[in-house]
Amino acid sequence: MKILSFKLNGEVKFGPKVKKEDAVWDVLKIQQDLKVFPSFPSDIIGGIAIGFDFVEKIRQLIEAAKESGVENQYKYDFSSIEWLSPIPRTPKNVICIGKNYNEHAKEMGAKEAPKNLVVFTKAPTSIAADQQVLPIHANKTNALDYEGELAVVIGKSGKDIPKNQAIDYIFGYTIANDITARDLQERHIQFFLGKSLDGSCPMGPYLVTKDEIPNPQNLTVVTKVNGEIRQNGSTKDMMFSVEDLISILSQYVTLEPGDVILTGTPAGVGKGMNPPTFLRAGDEVKISIEGIGTLVNRFE
Amino acid sequence: MKILSFKLNGEVKFGPKVKKEDAVWDVLKIQQDLKVFPSFPSDIIGGIAIGFDFVEKIRQLIEAAKESGVENQYKYDFSSIEWLSPIPRTPKNVICIGKNYNEHAKEMGAKEAPKNLVVFTKAPTSIAADQQVLPIHANKTNALDYEGELAVVIGKSGKDIPKNQAIDYIFGYTIANDITARDLQERHIQFFLGKSLDGSCPMGPYLVTKDEIPNPQNLTVVTKVNGEIRQNGSTKDMMFSVEDLISILSQYVTLEPGDVILTGTPAGVGKGMNPPTFLRAGDEVKISIEGIGTLVNRFE
Repeated sequence: MKILSFKLNGEVKFGPKVKKEDAVWDVLKIQQDLKVFPSFPSDIIGGIAIGFDFVEKIRQLIEAAKESGVENQYKYDFSSIEWLSPIPRTPKNVICIGKNYNEHAKEMGAKEAPKNLVVFTKAPTSIAADQQVLPIHANKTNALDYEGELAVVIGKSGKDIPKNQAIDYIFGYTIANDITARDLQERHIQFFLGKSLDGSCPMGPYLVTKDEIPNPQNLTVVTKVNGEIRQNGSTKDMMFSVEDLISILSQYVTLEPGDVILTGTPAGVGKGMNPPTFLRAGDEVKISIEGIGTLVNRFE
Repeated sequence: MKILSFKLNGEVKFGPKVKKEDAVWDVLKIQQDLKVFPSFPSDIIGGIAIGFDFVEKIRQLIEAAKESGVENQYKYDFSSIEWLSPIPRTPKNVICIGKNYNEHAKEMGAKEAPKNLVVFTKAPTSIAADQQVLPIHANKTNALDYEGELAVVIGKSGKDIPKNQAIDYIFGYTIANDITARDLQERHIQFFLGKSLDGSCPMGPYLVTKDEIPNPQNLTVVTKVNGEIRQNGSTKDMMFSVEDLISILSQYVTLEPGDVILTGTPAGVGKGMNPPTFLRAGDEVKISIEGIGTLVNRFE
């Protein structure tokens, strides 16, 4: 199932994409009108926290809408909603993995990828939506760069998660652009500041439930800037797999429903080009991951 | 005013210390019973977000309780409540400043404190309370260390805050122990993992409103381990003042009500001792800051 978050008349909502239509089901309205369940989560993190039963309940709400005779009342065309990040606000900072692809580690000047996980965070205030026009922050940085990444959305709380159970803790996947001000990242040594400017963590368009991505380690990740292919990687080249990441991270940090892990970026960032080429006002960045979709943002 | 957060019968509450008594006013119950205001925030971050009017409203609730003839119904002895961190859950990760005291930078092996802010974060799942017994994490680290710090609680949203307006964005202060697994901090290069173990961010006992701390740059910070003085610093030795921190941070990250900034630790951490001396099960760490109180935690 492809779930999106959106705003309608000032209210934050979520719902699944309508199959074969560019529209979303307003499941909260279906539940409110038709009272299909005694209770139903009012926000997406509350939904994720009840596990895969959430997806089953959404299916039943769609069925109820179809049988209501007024199903069009419960569908909104994509053009009529304001898109949000599938997780509009993560419960913690967004958890990010550095140098998780060997070729990217090399283009950043390292001999090879680090042996131990490098983990930093992005402030949740940096989260943005698919199609959102993002600030270029010209007065703060001259070196804004893209990083196309597979993002994992955690489904349930856990710590010390064994690798062979890690998959149980995944709710689904989305696409993220880990936008980075390279000059600020270097100037401040620890990455947090250079990674946390407003708008520097667009995610979307969909949260795709894990049943649709049977193997997260065999997905192509393609990033285009103004139509030119810059990154063309595969998640099979991750140094630490999604299962490794969940298992290792959870030895340090208690994971929670709605936490998002950015799994690192393949080679081909602007800083690795010769000469280094950073984003400019007017640029459009498109990141596509197989089975998830395409995240598009223009900079201004 | 000294405000604390606590749990009573499973409910998270907040309220001011009763003057000259070891007790707290249950302002939510006062409001519920006596309906002093048309509405009143149900959680402390909601309260902080309405600004200093929150403190004035708390004062009026106390007055109403005193006039009710049943004021004892609204007071709970400290022994009957479960203490929480004054901000039980920060809206972002806890924002931490590295090497903000020159002598501490030197004891950590640097020639001098860095010219630019070093900022990392601690997961909000690491937050703990005053008096809480904390895990020593013996199976994860051999080098758990304390860092006594002044913590600033942000009162309102802002970005690009001029230094001369920074004070307006402070709601108050508390004490924090930025507990750090030195081995994990080094192994993973970026600090997040070594700083985010469960229980590694005790804060408290009180959130002291800023009117009680007219000059945050002249407070002694004393840390004792099992009664032995290890840190005896003053906030006057910060490289970046509280106002600097708010102004600089807000150029990168949008600050929000309830955000907590740990302002860095003075010299005297266990890693700086000869030989380095880390925390062990049974140790008690006490951090005292003038005008705020004493944060005490034992490790097990």
